[in-house]
Amino acid sequence: MYSTYEQPEFDVHDPAEIRRVIYEAYCNGKEAAANGRAADYIPELAKADPGDFGICVMGAEGDPIVFGEVEKRFSIQSISKVINLAAALKFLGFRETFSHVGMEPTGDAFNSILKLDTVSDLPFNPMINAGAIQIAGMLSNVMDFGELLDFARAFCMDDGIALNEAVYRSESETGDRNRAIVYLLKSKGVLQGDPEKTLDLYFRMCSLNVNARSLAQMGLLLACDGQNPFTGRHIVHPGYIRTIKSLMFTCGMYDESGEYGVRVGIPSKSGVGGGIAGTVGHRFGIGVYGPALNKKGNSAGGIAALEHLSHLLKLNAFS
Amino acid sequence: MYSTYEQPEFDVHDPAEIRRVIYEAYCNGKEAAANGRAADYIPELAKADPGDFGICVMGAEGDPIVFGEVEKRFSIQSISKVINLAAALKFLGFRETFSHVGMEPTGDAFNSILKLDTVSDLPFNPMINAGAIQIAGMLSNVMDFGELLDFARAFCMDDGIALNEAVYRSESETGDRNRAIVYLLKSKGVLQGDPEKTLDLYFRMCSLNVNARSLAQMGLLLACDGQNPFTGRHIVHPGYIRTIKSLMFTCGMYDESGEYGVRVGIPSKSGVGGGIAGTVGHRFGIGVYGPALNKKGNSAGGIAALEHLSHLLKLNAFS
Amino acid sequence: MYSTYEQPEFDVHDPAEIRRVIYEAYCNGKEAAANGRAADYIPELAKADPGDFGICVMGAEGDPIVFGEVEKRFSIQSISKVINLAAALKFLGFRETFSHVGMEPTGDAFNSILKLDTVSDLPFNPMINAGAIQIAGMLSNVMDFGELLDFARAFCMDDGIALNEAVYRSESETGDRNRAIVYLLKSKGVLQGDPEKTLDLYFRMCSLNVNARSLAQMGLLLACDGQNPFTGRHIVHPGYIRTIKSLMFTCGMYDESGEYGVRVGIPSKSGVGGGIAGTVGHRFGIGVYGPALNKKGNSAGGIAALEHLSHLLKLNAFS
Amino acid sequence: MYSTYEQPEFDVHDPAEIRRVIYEAYCNGKEAAANGRAADYIPELAKADPGDFGICVMGAEGDPIVFGEVEKRFSIQSISKVINLAAALKFLGFRETFSHVGMEPTGDAFNSILKLDTVSDLPFNPMINAGAIQIAGMLSNVMDFGELLDFARAFCMDDGIALNEAVYRSESETGDRNRAIVYLLKSKGVLQGDPEKTLDLYFRMCSLNVNARSLAQMGLLLACDGQNPFTGRHIVHPGYIRTIKSLMFTCGMYDESGEYGVRVGIPSKSGVGGGIAGTVGHRFGIGVYGPALNKKGNSAGGIAALEHLSHLLKLNAFS
Repeated sequence: MYSTYEQPEFDVHDPAEIRRVIYEAYCNGKEAAANGRAADYIPELAKADPGDFGICVMGAEGDPIVFGEVEKRFSIQSISKVINLAAALKFLGFRETFSHVGMEPTGDAFNSILKLDTVSDLPFNPMINAGAIQIAGMLSNVMDFGELLDFARAFCMDDGIALNEAVYRSESETGDRNRAIVYLLKSKGVLQGDPEKTLDLYFRMCSLNVNARSLAQMGLLLACDGQNPFTGRHIVHPGYIRTIKSLMFTCGMYDESGEYGVRVGIPSKSGVGGGIAGTVGHRFGIGVYGPALNKKGNSAGGIAALEHLSHLLKLNAFS
Repeated sequence: MYSTYEQPEFDVHDPAEIRRVIYEAYCNGKEAAANGRAADYIPELAKADPGDFGICVMGAEGDPIVFGEVEKRFSIQSISKVINLAAALKFLGFRETFSHVGMEPTGDAFNSILKLDTVSDLPFNPMINAGAIQIAGMLSNVMDFGELLDFARAFCMDDGIALNEAVYRSESETGDRNRAIVYLLKSKGVLQGDPEKTLDLYFRMCSLNVNARSLAQMGLLLACDGQNPFTGRHIVHPGYIRTIKSLMFTCGMYDESGEYGVRVGIPSKSGVGGGIAGTVGHRFGIGVYGPALNKKGNSAGGIAALEHLSHLLKLNAFS
Repeated sequence: MYSTYEQPEFDVHDPAEIRRVIYEAYCNGKEAAANGRAADYIPELAKADPGDFGICVMGAEGDPIVFGEVEKRFSIQSISKVINLAAALKFLGFRETFSHVGMEPTGDAFNSILKLDTVSDLPFNPMINAGAIQIAGMLSNVMDFGELLDFARAFCMDDGIALNEAVYRSESETGDRNRAIVYLLKSKGVLQGDPEKTLDLYFRMCSLNVNARSLAQMGLLLACDGQNPFTGRHIVHPGYIRTIKSLMFTCGMYDESGEYGVRVGIPSKSGVGGGIAGTVGHRFGIGVYGPALNKKGNSAGGIAALEHLSHLLKLNAFS
Repeated sequence: MYSTYEQPEFDVHDPAEIRRVIYEAYCNGKEAAANGRAADYIPELAKADPGDFGICVMGAEGDPIVFGEVEKRFSIQSISKVINLAAALKFLGFRETFSHVGMEPTGDAFNSILKLDTVSDLPFNPMINAGAIQIAGMLSNVMDFGELLDFARAFCMDDGIALNEAVYRSESETGDRNRAIVYLLKSKGVLQGDPEKTLDLYFRMCSLNVNARSLAQMGLLLACDGQNPFTGRHIVHPGYIRTIKSLMFTCGMYDESGEYGVRVGIPSKSGVGGGIAGTVGHRFGIGVYGPALNKKGNSAGGIAALEHLSHLLKLNAFS
């Protein structure tokens, strides 16, 4: 944890300095990973090596800066919630999307159903399970998994993304809490799709194989206002990108989002597979892989690395 | 409500255009005020004229742009939570402050005690009543109201700020829920000050008389990294300003913070007196006065005006 | 509502007087039904005639006293929870049964999952949906529906009890909240049976066709310590009957159980089909049918009739 | 814990047998006390000797049967809730009393404010702190502590009852949670008295010095329908006694009431001072003193003794 007083003493735009700081961040992250442990609520996730750590920082020009395990594939898990939201905004529109899901942080755990059953029939936001399942329900009416996978590949600028069958089976077999959520949504009359079809799409999206590079590329696409900077192709409208970033900022890091906002201040989304995707202004994307999680379910090494980067390179949205 | 697609077609840095957009925002806000109503939970607040509306936008150079009721004094209410937090950071430090209060949005109403009694003994964040009372308790050990008032004047660059005695009496007499909160904090062993002294300081700070201009000046000080741009005096350290802005973004607009982040995207804090203080990058502060509130307790006109400004002038932190 | 001061002025054991009081109770119930409305959350239930009302009081000797619609069949709904509990106690034992479900009233609605997700992994008691589903899961491992139906017939001394296919289909198709509950229990690792098999058994038991006479007979069996007074056959052990009556008293009337205990004081169980089964000391059973429900989901006429009976005949367990 | 199958094999009305069973209950209670510990949330309570244990069973005729520490005085704590309720019913009436407090068990801890802030503005029942404070507020308008003390003495047939000044001071100084409750009730506009006066009356009533004998006498008065069997004086109307017993049954043993109802089945009220007062039909009262508490806040020895008595002497209300 940094003191809020310390200030970097170098040019935060000098490539060599940036590279050095990213290497330090990598070292910090690798070290911090020792304090976390791999998720075990899905058997397939428990097989990850908690010592793994990798980071990729990618701008629109020049080569990405990478350290450690940046090519290793792992399941995207909750980071797919960003893709689902982006797809809903693109294919259904802002108004339709937010007719069926809210925009408020909950202060509860990501898989909580407390608010759903006491405060509001609509899920609070698209970054918690209930909200992402709700969005999967909407998407299931207008596209199939193959089409959504194509969108995910475009959104991450990574054609190598594919379904991890073992994780998908593991999710489906042990996803009882998510099944409870989908039926709760149905019982309230708010679910938009068929429950089992919805759940299947949700589980499949959680089971996509990405790597730190894919996540950096997702962050870069967000930084480029939804345009692929290499091909010039527009994937998502800039107005939607703003919405996505704002929800990543307020709700993207589970019930650690507020503290992460203060300490790191980079719109980011984490997954229990160990990934974090971050997006910095109109500058670059950051992808991290570190399956050792902290108590809130966020990559322990990833948070340490991102805090270092944000602090030294002044990446905080409000600095 | 704007479509997320519409784009401004003018130079967002042209002073004349900016002035025109601010006037439109004023008109929108004045009109939207008709849909709200003045707070009535404190008798003194119910006396406000719900038709009042004023806006002040102030940069570090040149005259502020003002329309409507910008000189009329009203009670600062919850916007004082920003001042309390700034004082705690300045006089007690980051580590000490956040040893006694969290940084997470709650998803609950501003005066909720639900989480306090179920999830955590510490208040979730400094922007809800429980958190601000907790901070008032800490401050009560190191300074008296006179000193905190001096800080408030410096923080808002407004020596005209004074205690509104009528509101203060009204708060003290009807503040039973806040009294419940302070004793709940005490019963959990987390309160740092004497309960009645804490509550008195909290009520006094809620009863400060500000106007739209003071709030714009507070926003400007935040935009200037805690430095008074006119005198050059450093009021609060830049590292703390970042923390304050981040918490304003995630928690500043009651349980409408998430949606406001998406639609407006300007770190802001509202009060049930009808004020909103916003801060835009390193550019300017915005102060609004509109005592007609929406259902979440935020100034109805203020939100309409700020949404217009943000949209037309591209002020969203993530655009 | 009776004053607690009025006292009956006749011999509460004189058959003619008893008959007269039961007739008054019937009239009161019939009248009170006008204030309720039939359940509509299952389409099949909404077809009931809210004007229907019938009451049956049956002792171990002599003919039952009946007025109104006592032969008309309707679905047992939540009253089946008593049969499920009795079966669990008989076939699995006290210790095993209460290893998987609690004994505490919740103060929440019958279909609430709040406590299940915040306070305890085990359902609070067998009289709420979560608890009855849990018991159905246990039973599904040791018996099939045919065997449980046989037990239900013996427990109600009514061989005419059969599955109402239309209600069963309606339950299955619209029982999403119960499906959410079963998967929530499974996700917590506490569910004892297969989720779909459990749910099917639960829905079937809710769909049994009973009438006011069957319910009076269930009450009589409880009054006779679990023995069929006409055949001498022991159906359930007396020690278990005590347990069942106690849970009916504290939890049997949804979140109106406490007030019902004060005003009526007869161990009873209600269902949203409009039935109430009550049991009075070692004296007799009472069955009521009145599909017009009050806001808590209890038969409006049934409660009025039972309050009259209890008051005039001094049937309160604590009088 | 007893099997529900075992049956006593002796005449449950033979005085010598009863005496023997009560002695066994005393021995069991004394032994079970080793598993509990004295309350420590009020410093004064922590001074109790957890090894102390005493029991007193008293019928309307003949000498009471006593074993162990039956004369030692201790603070009545929550058992005073029964006296407060009885006084409210007597002096304000049923209708007025239950206009301001409910009758439903909560399923929450005795000092919970969860339901108060989410489900209902009125406290759920008179046996939890919020409900008893509400009743103290009502009483504070019609009588002073001296008069209520006189009533308590009559209700317990014990002129030796007096205020324990040390406990009263300890309560007042550390009763912050109760102070939070009283101000929460006031903020909701439901509190009937002045908050500090209400709290003072509530704390004083919790601080009355009773002994196991007083509690048995309270139970006996309840068994005698509110009449002192020795003087013939009517203290409380029989209709109110029924109400009190019913609420003791559903809500009297904190969040262990449901299980206690099943295992013991005697209308009882416990206090964290270590006392339990029970009332058996129209037969006798039981008073227990055992300051070693179980996790729910009930006397560990007391529950063991009462379960033994209930089982062997068949005292369960529903057996």
